[in-house]
Amino acid sequence: MPQAAQYKIALCQLPVTADKHGNIARARARIEAAAAAGAELVVLPEIWSCPYAMQTMRSYAEDIDGGRSPSVSMLSEVAAARKITIVGGSIPEMVPASGQLFNTCCVVGPDGEIKAKHRKLHLFGIDIPRDITFRESDTFTAGQEPTVVDTDVGRIGIGICHDIRFPELAMLYRSRGAHLICYPSAFNMSTGQLLWDLMQKSRAVDNQLFVATCSPARDPNSQSDFVVWGNSSLIGPFGEVLAAAGHEDATVIGEIDLCLIEAVRESLPLETQGRGDLYRLIDVQRERSS
Amino acid sequence: MPQAAQYKIALCQLPVTADKHGNIARARARIEAAAAAGAELVVLPEIWSCPYAMQTMRSYAEDIDGGRSPSVSMLSEVAAARKITIVGGSIPEMVPASGQLFNTCCVVGPDGEIKAKHRKLHLFGIDIPRDITFRESDTFTAGQEPTVVDTDVGRIGIGICHDIRFPELAMLYRSRGAHLICYPSAFNMSTGQLLWDLMQKSRAVDNQLFVATCSPARDPNSQSDFVVWGNSSLIGPFGEVLAAAGHEDATVIGEIDLCLIEAVRESLPLETQGRGDLYRLIDVQRERSS
Repeated sequence: MPQAAQYKIALCQLPVTADKHGNIARARARIEAAAAAGAELVVLPEIWSCPYAMQTMRSYAEDIDGGRSPSVSMLSEVAAARKITIVGGSIPEMVPASGQLFNTCCVVGPDGEIKAKHRKLHLFGIDIPRDITFRESDTFTAGQEPTVVDTDVGRIGIGICHDIRFPELAMLYRSRGAHLICYPSAFNMSTGQLLWDLMQKSRAVDNQLFVATCSPARDPNSQSDFVVWGNSSLIGPFGEVLAAAGHEDATVIGEIDLCLIEAVRESLPLETQGRGDLYRLIDVQRERSS
Repeated sequence: MPQAAQYKIALCQLPVTADKHGNIARARARIEAAAAAGAELVVLPEIWSCPYAMQTMRSYAEDIDGGRSPSVSMLSEVAAARKITIVGGSIPEMVPASGQLFNTCCVVGPDGEIKAKHRKLHLFGIDIPRDITFRESDTFTAGQEPTVVDTDVGRIGIGICHDIRFPELAMLYRSRGAHLICYPSAFNMSTGQLLWDLMQKSRAVDNQLFVATCSPARDPNSQSDFVVWGNSSLIGPFGEVLAAAGHEDATVIGEIDLCLIEAVRESLPLETQGRGDLYRLIDVQRERSS
């Protein structure tokens, strides 16, 4: 696997509207601009092809496996044309045979091929009586597999939004050798304020790797209950903020230096200091297949 | 087990000098003052009976199991006199038979008895060439058991300083039913700046429980290389700061409302949203004994 020791990563904090074709055209333009600025890896937000609204989600869904996905086709075209890797945020994926809807991230390589498809594993649900009740599981089906993918810029673990809330998933990705975890996400204003910064830094620091988050841009004129937090960021293995957006429409570019991971792990060898005699995280699928 | 739904916890951010008797007398006075202010649980810092200096540690060590520990005797007397529970920070513990030295926290109940003894599980070590090399393991032996203890104020997990860096330990304590994890700690200025806030909040938020940290006070005139961070804090299950010291000599008192834990877990049921089909943390000692 060819692997650059250093490379630029772009986080495209895209505005999202009800016009899918407009969203796709804008994403294409932003990815092209990021590639022109030297990014070898481009990350998009969670649900960037349509509004994050459960009642309309199904009408925007695309059949990725059936090859009827204009959003993913665009990603493939741009990745191949620009010779870059894209962590394609997520779009609603429809599986016609079952009628199931997934919240799905495609990772596309510089040859335009889909290298991995991550279906959101942990669906968000909250129930605060007389305040907010919300269940993604009313609309989406949860995925069945953690996703680690080897790319031209190294081994990447994928999580979508609420997946970041579960430290075990990040630990599992670290044990599978990921150097970077990308979390396309759409935190809202209240969970964003409370948790966004904390979650991305602690996943990076606990696992001594890079974490990238990518949110849609906040729409200050939003009529929706769901206003996104923004603040897409790249965090280094010691919790340092390497690049960060505000809440507006923006692309931020940061640099990943893979040597930093080894430096941090050598100076503070958490893995050898851990107590495997007292606790152990089981990677169930790996365990089963070994 | 009697259990108050609400109670006051005091974090005694003690100054520490080379005078052990002075340290013990000061700790006694601070614990008594905290009890007088209504605290039912009092927490002390890591290594409060003597300086945190490896070269002199052994000379301050006490034989706890042999009943020759003036520091722990004081904790027992005050706890019994004031009818409170004390998480007694830590002191260097000597085991005469083996010559081993442990970094040990005693939990003392309102009857003056030692309810649990936690020996630091993860010894700190760092190796940055031409900057800092430091190994606690040159001086201390690591403990062999995680510690969860039932007290009059609920079930408490204990970790000492570097123990907080390992998310698995906090997860194990949560699965054993702890509502609070106390981490007597002595972070230094650089790890304090980078990690103190992040670690205590992420352990609280990931496990939806209370976290209390207690540091010695910073000595602004310290001639030592090791200057402590201070900032003892009580964090709630949503990451909220309920009480926090600065870096000076101080006792801060916060309130723990156990009902908050159930409220947070009901509104955001991380445990049922987790994917036990994909990952699972093994509590090795529990597994072996079951």
